[in-house]
Amino acid sequence: MATEPTLYYAPGTCAQAVLIALYEADAAFTLKTLSFANNEQRSPEYLAINPKGRVPALVTSRGVLTEAPALLLYVAQTYPQAKLAPLDDPFALAHMQDFNNYLSSTAHVAHAHRPRASRWVDDESAQAAVRAKVPQNMRECFGLIENHYLSDKPWVMGDQFTVADGYLYTVAAWLQGDGVDIAEFPRVAAHAERMRARPSVRKLG
Amino acid sequence: MATEPTLYYAPGTCAQAVLIALYEADAAFTLKTLSFANNEQRSPEYLAINPKGRVPALVTSRGVLTEAPALLLYVAQTYPQAKLAPLDDPFALAHMQDFNNYLSSTAHVAHAHRPRASRWVDDESAQAAVRAKVPQNMRECFGLIENHYLSDKPWVMGDQFTVADGYLYTVAAWLQGDGVDIAEFPRVAAHAERMRARPSVRKLG
Ligand SMILES: N[C@@H](CCC(=O)N[C@@H](CS)C(=O)NCC(=O)O)C(=O)O
Ligand SMILES: N[C@@H](CCC(=O)N[C@@H](CS)C(=O)NCC(=O)O)C(=O)O
Repeated sequence: MATEPTLYYAPGTCAQAVLIALYEADAAFTLKTLSFANNEQRSPEYLAINPKGRVPALVTSRGVLTEAPALLLYVAQTYPQAKLAPLDDPFALAHMQDFNNYLSSTAHVAHAHRPRASRWVDDESAQAAVRAKVPQNMRECFGLIENHYLSDKPWVMGDQFTVADGYLYTVAAWLQGDGVDIAEFPRVAAHAERMRARPSVRKLG
Repeated sequence: MATEPTLYYAPGTCAQAVLIALYEADAAFTLKTLSFANNEQRSPEYLAINPKGRVPALVTSRGVLTEAPALLLYVAQTYPQAKLAPLDDPFALAHMQDFNNYLSSTAHVAHAHRPRASRWVDDESAQAAVRAKVPQNMRECFGLIENHYLSDKPWVMGDQFTVADGYLYTVAAWLQGDGVDIAEFPRVAAHAERMRARPSVRKLG
């Protein structure tokens, strides 16, 4: 067997989605927690691992992987016995990645304009204007998730729990800080309740 | 056989990456071109297909798929004989999706702040400030692509041409309009040259 992988993580970030997936897979791995308060994600040591200066990063015996949706696919494919994705159905797998990619490219980005407005604009008053629009954009994203992606079945993919569920749970937890009440989205709120009952999520502490 | 899929597309957009992949796969499909000038992506007819009001969308006999990286995975898996992804190697496949997801969540988003600044801020002078930072962010993204993802091998994944190549070619073509000279990134520029020689890209017209 190859050496076990190491996940670089920070609590409450999108890397939590990958941690939940690894717990669900009952994988053997090492967890390294970075302190964002101390800007450890920008330390020379970490930039040598992931030059993006972000989490998640998974160090494997083959090399380093980054980007949450890619890591979620990797975990699902590497621990197939955990059945964390519809691996034998290309349409269903693409649908799961469609959802994950929407979280990464649109919902996550909508949220990041609050804590990381300076990525996209230098001027301080413009940053304040950018932050002010975050609740509207998060509402739009979660309206789409509620009405288009979710159904009355328990999980993102219907009856099968997948890596997409830990990702949704993680991003939905940002709503409150963004000034949006999760109760506006009953399916998303019920999904978060179901997630909180899982051992993998309880283990996050 | 299932009915052939329909790709909703607009020239020069990220949907071009999916069109290149379908051409490379020699797939049978129907192409529907939307006029962004006429805002056809927000017509009620199109919103019924893709409520996001964006391209790409692929209508299949099983349902609609959106999000470029998910569609690229789908094309590679659905036409395996075209060998457009390392389908038998979970690490390599995740690495390809890592790259594709970086384009979608970071490089594409950096670019979109120029034509679509109003997505993230209402105030017109703040929109101008947002647009002004686009060249810097695109340079940062393409610096990372040049030095971290690309090597001196011909394609994103090394010697194997994959769906990631049409996606890189598509996003790199936005540099010029964003005020960045592709020549600053010699590997990206050489990659674009190689792409322009391919029949799939010539077919775009
Ligand atoms: N596109 C990446 C984004 C990763 C990302 O932005 N991670 C955040 C935490 S949620 C981060 O590490 N931010 C640190 C920083 O910007 O300094 C993905 O989807 O995984
Ligand atoms: N996250 C999506 C983004 C899709 C997207 O933004 N498409 C653009 C074209 S490159 C679009 O359709 N824009 C139309 C609009 O905003 O009205 C993906 O990666 O496929």
